[in-house]
Amino acid sequence: MSDDPEPSGQYVQSLARGLSVIRAFGRDRPSMTLSDIADTTGLTRATARRFLLTLLELGYVRADGRLFALTPRVLELGFSYLSGLALPEIVAPHLEELSRELNESASASVLDDSDIVYIARVPARRIMTVSITVGTRFPAHATSMGRVLLAGLDESSLERYLDSFGRETLTEKTVTDAVSLRHTLEEVRRQGWALVDQELEHGLRSIAAPLHGADGRVVAAINVSTSTSTASLERIRDEYRPAVLRAAADISAALIRY
Amino acid sequence: MSDDPEPSGQYVQSLARGLSVIRAFGRDRPSMTLSDIADTTGLTRATARRFLLTLLELGYVRADGRLFALTPRVLELGFSYLSGLALPEIVAPHLEELSRELNESASASVLDDSDIVYIARVPARRIMTVSITVGTRFPAHATSMGRVLLAGLDESSLERYLDSFGRETLTEKTVTDAVSLRHTLEEVRRQGWALVDQELEHGLRSIAAPLHGADGRVVAAINVSTSTSTASLERIRDEYRPAVLRAAADISAALIRY
Repeated sequence: MSDDPEPSGQYVQSLARGLSVIRAFGRDRPSMTLSDIADTTGLTRATARRFLLTLLELGYVRADGRLFALTPRVLELGFSYLSGLALPEIVAPHLEELSRELNESASASVLDDSDIVYIARVPARRIMTVSITVGTRFPAHATSMGRVLLAGLDESSLERYLDSFGRETLTEKTVTDAVSLRHTLEEVRRQGWALVDQELEHGLRSIAAPLHGADGRVVAAINVSTSTSTASLERIRDEYRPAVLRAAADISAALIRY
Repeated sequence: MSDDPEPSGQYVQSLARGLSVIRAFGRDRPSMTLSDIADTTGLTRATARRFLLTLLELGYVRADGRLFALTPRVLELGFSYLSGLALPEIVAPHLEELSRELNESASASVLDDSDIVYIARVPARRIMTVSITVGTRFPAHATSMGRVLLAGLDESSLERYLDSFGRETLTEKTVTDAVSLRHTLEEVRRQGWALVDQELEHGLRSIAAPLHGADGRVVAAINVSTSTSTASLERIRDEYRPAVLRAAADISAALIRY
């Protein structure tokens, strides 16, 4: 095992590497050969092979000839997180109702570093739908849910976020400087909702509201997303906003009772 | 690191142990102390500590005083599986429609060994709802989706399954002998759907249909679940069955075009 030395400290490199093998699979690479996996992870073939065989033994990977793929058992890892969280269960029926009412996709997310992570989603019944599932991540600054989550940070956490703000340009509309973003977040904090118009992707608009826990802190966000061809900014403000705010208030009330 | 020896073979024990630490968290244990985690996983405190620190470093765990909890980043592991799968995206709008039409929860699952694993779910808008999320597992033999998935196995795989059939009794209605189960599965195969009445849990009824891939094999199942107080067996057969079969046919057609 000279190719996989454990460092002398507390860090277990084998665990980190094994998890990188799981993450190597994805939309563009649902199944891979040993060489593909070694290339993607930067591990040697011998090391990648050991991790694959271990994951095979544990039931997280299956082999089909020379190709390896993840099994649905991998979901149990994320499930460990979701099942410990009361949120997805509490928000689900409310998102469902919101989606029916507006005939749009409704979602809930939490903040993880500088990204939002979807924890629940009810897609609109459409042919054209944004391919987002539980676990999808987007940069917080360019999304409506990210804006209400960032606006809900305490001052020192927000400072830290803005200091390392990456200025990632996603469309020509994306806010890219920390001063403008802080300004925007202050407005979001005042008004209690955020509307983002095509800053994440062309043609995509969404409006979000914060969910508050029993201590009043922002614990998650919900949004309704739509396209420029479906809803004008006026319609989002006049029709969608009250529905999203009402759903957020209902969920926050349920969270306090929980 | 004498408490965490790597075996000389191909198996990477550190990876297996690290994953067991992630799995230790869950509905009843969303946050745990180091001692709790050592107890739950059977690892020594020193070993559990190394894995926790590694997961902390990787962003999969956060610490809050003496308590450790998973972060939403854990979802990216399951997401590696889901995003490689076209299924959840294709089924979502159909489940949405099915759920709206019948005002019941609609789900999709795949077979993993002797369990079904949920890959998509649209909960009904109800106060009383079964707490199932993507990643939830149930024993296949006692569920309607499990029955259509088992009925879709080739003969040798089905033989293997029945040989090791665990006869797990969940309610007094659960089929527990391999002969009866084989009989039931043959009927399911003939009729193309499965109705299960309170074999998984008292008061729970569901009807499922298989999804076929381009090669005609059963790749997944969808169902609609309800309660004994909401729908009689007759109503499930007369009203729910045609809706479920139509949705399954639509999804299978979409899978072939994909």
